Amino acid sequence: MSLDRLIEKIAELQNPTVAGLDPKLDYIPAFIKSAAFQQYGETLEGAAAALLEFNKGLIDELCGIVPAVKPQCAYYEMYGWPGVKALHDTIAYAHKKGMFVITDGKRNDIGTTMEAYAAAHLGSVAVGQTNCVPFGGDALTVNAYLGSDGVNPLLKTCEQEDKGIFVLVKTSNPSSGELQDRMLEQGGSLYAAMGELCEHWGQALPGRHGYSGVGAVVGATYPQQLGELRVKLPHTFFLVPGYGAQGGAAKDVAPAFDANGCGAVVNASRSILCAWQKTGAAQQDYAKAAAREAVRMRDEIRAEIGSIRV
Amino acid sequence: MSLDRLIEKIAELQNPTVAGLDPKLDYIPAFIKSAAFQQYGETLEGAAAALLEFNKGLIDELCGIVPAVKPQCAYYEMYGWPGVKALHDTIAYAHKKGMFVITDGKRNDIGTTMEAYAAAHLGSVAVGQTNCVPFGGDALTVNAYLGSDGVNPLLKTCEQEDKGIFVLVKTSNPSSGELQDRMLEQGGSLYAAMGELCEHWGQALPGRHGYSGVGAVVGATYPQQLGELRVKLPHTFFLVPGYGAQGGAAKDVAPAFDANGCGAVVNASRSILCAWQKTGAAQQDYAKAAAREAVRMRDEIRAEIGSIRV
Repeated sequence: MSLDRLIEKIAELQNPTVAGLDPKLDYIPAFIKSAAFQQYGETLEGAAAALLEFNKGLIDELCGIVPAVKPQCAYYEMYGWPGVKALHDTIAYAHKKGMFVITDGKRNDIGTTMEAYAAAHLGSVAVGQTNCVPFGGDALTVNAYLGSDGVNPLLKTCEQEDKGIFVLVKTSNPSSGELQDRMLEQGGSLYAAMGELCEHWGQALPGRHGYSGVGAVVGATYPQQLGELRVKLPHTFFLVPGYGAQGGAAKDVAPAFDANGCGAVVNASRSILCAWQKTGAAQQDYAKAAAREAVRMRDEIRAEIGSIRV
Repeated sequence: MSLDRLIEKIAELQNPTVAGLDPKLDYIPAFIKSAAFQQYGETLEGAAAALLEFNKGLIDELCGIVPAVKPQCAYYEMYGWPGVKALHDTIAYAHKKGMFVITDGKRNDIGTTMEAYAAAHLGSVAVGQTNCVPFGGDALTVNAYLGSDGVNPLLKTCEQEDKGIFVLVKTSNPSSGELQDRMLEQGGSLYAAMGELCEHWGQALPGRHGYSGVGAVVGATYPQQLGELRVKLPHTFFLVPGYGAQGGAAKDVAPAFDANGCGAVVNASRSILCAWQKTGAAQQDYAKAAAREAVRMRDEIRAEIGSIRV
């Protein structure tokens, strides 16, 4: 299903990375903000206009280098409904530029409510006789603490619409072990049990390249678990956060990949978005600085895994 | 912190229930939809206008009976950014009518991203020199699979803004046991461990009535676990879904309450929203039919727990 499209795009660009679009106002050059505030005032509309302009500039420079973007919903919701409109417009712009879009919402619920999230982020909704596309991402991150009732409604939408999901398995944060590392009476850890469920759910969405439409989020900050899970979950594609700002290095993410250099996509957000600040680039050069960092990251990871053969 | 305000409102109205605002278009009377579509067409804007009008009518009739509303984010996101604007406007309208608002988003993430969700749903955000309130709910539902890194940023906002959270502990759905009931090597179940973390996190937000600002979601469909957790988690206020359409009855929710009739708020969504359809009421009577069902539910639960003494 839809993770096939991601995998093929990764192979085409020979780049197994995704750029996280987490646009806090602090990361946005002053010239973009002042233009937006001049038009809309210091309002949520003004903030949203700055977010969208910032993202469009990044997408223009990244689309020939990076196969996918991952907008993080929180940073758009933080600017209210105008921010959420900027999320919609960002997804549409990335699609226009040929990029795959992973909506990072970590959504979770059950039954008809989860169907509503599936329609919102991956599908469409009927309004009278008209079919409308609310956000139209290609894949959605999902928290499956509620079990199959929270995942099955997504599988249906993924099958119909050629979309995919990524389920949180072992997250990149320091406290991820508080619950995820607990050992179960039956043997194995909670995150391993979640991983096995991903393999199970994925059977409903087999892919052309050996990986199903149900991926897993596994953090770069836990390379041992990454390698262990790569072996145990042969049909589960990994979304790997935690590279760069959170401390994961290229050698840490290498265990996420299979012998063909496939099986994972590595996310970086702040290291790309804030490259212009970190490298002391001119404001107007922010998108080109992001692209230079994206190339550096691609080459660093490719040096570990070689070429990507699909 | 803010769950005190909920508890006091429950005592004032002697009603330990919350009305879930999950407005699918199917639940909305035709006269509201046709007026909205006439103005905005069969578009997401048209759907959102119908949602808001439906909610306002409900809030007008419920605000003197029910202490709180719980809008479920999924049903607003399903109608795109115009739907999310309707969520904002619904929260503002409920506040104008004196109701407590629990935003049911089951949000989860870490660090600065969770800070963004906290600002979005419970706090405020700086845009230039101006402070803006994105959504302004009073409490937020939260999925804590990521551990303390996903909860601590919320505690800070709750303390500053007098707000609260509800953490998913034992959800109401049939498959909730797939992960939540797994027995841990150290003893006890995963949901019990999550409950203990709620008591721990809640220590940062002590309340005036014995309950902290960190509540727990525990389903009406598991009355035995409800009673067990009420004893084990004496400072954790419960949000109890699963009453009504999902099968939970008044006797099932009784174990969620303490000896003073306090300690929990029971949610019903479809049984209230769709009361006009279920009772064969006239379309124009939809909000009064909802109020009649809300009174029936209040009286049924109060018959089990007696008066609420705070």
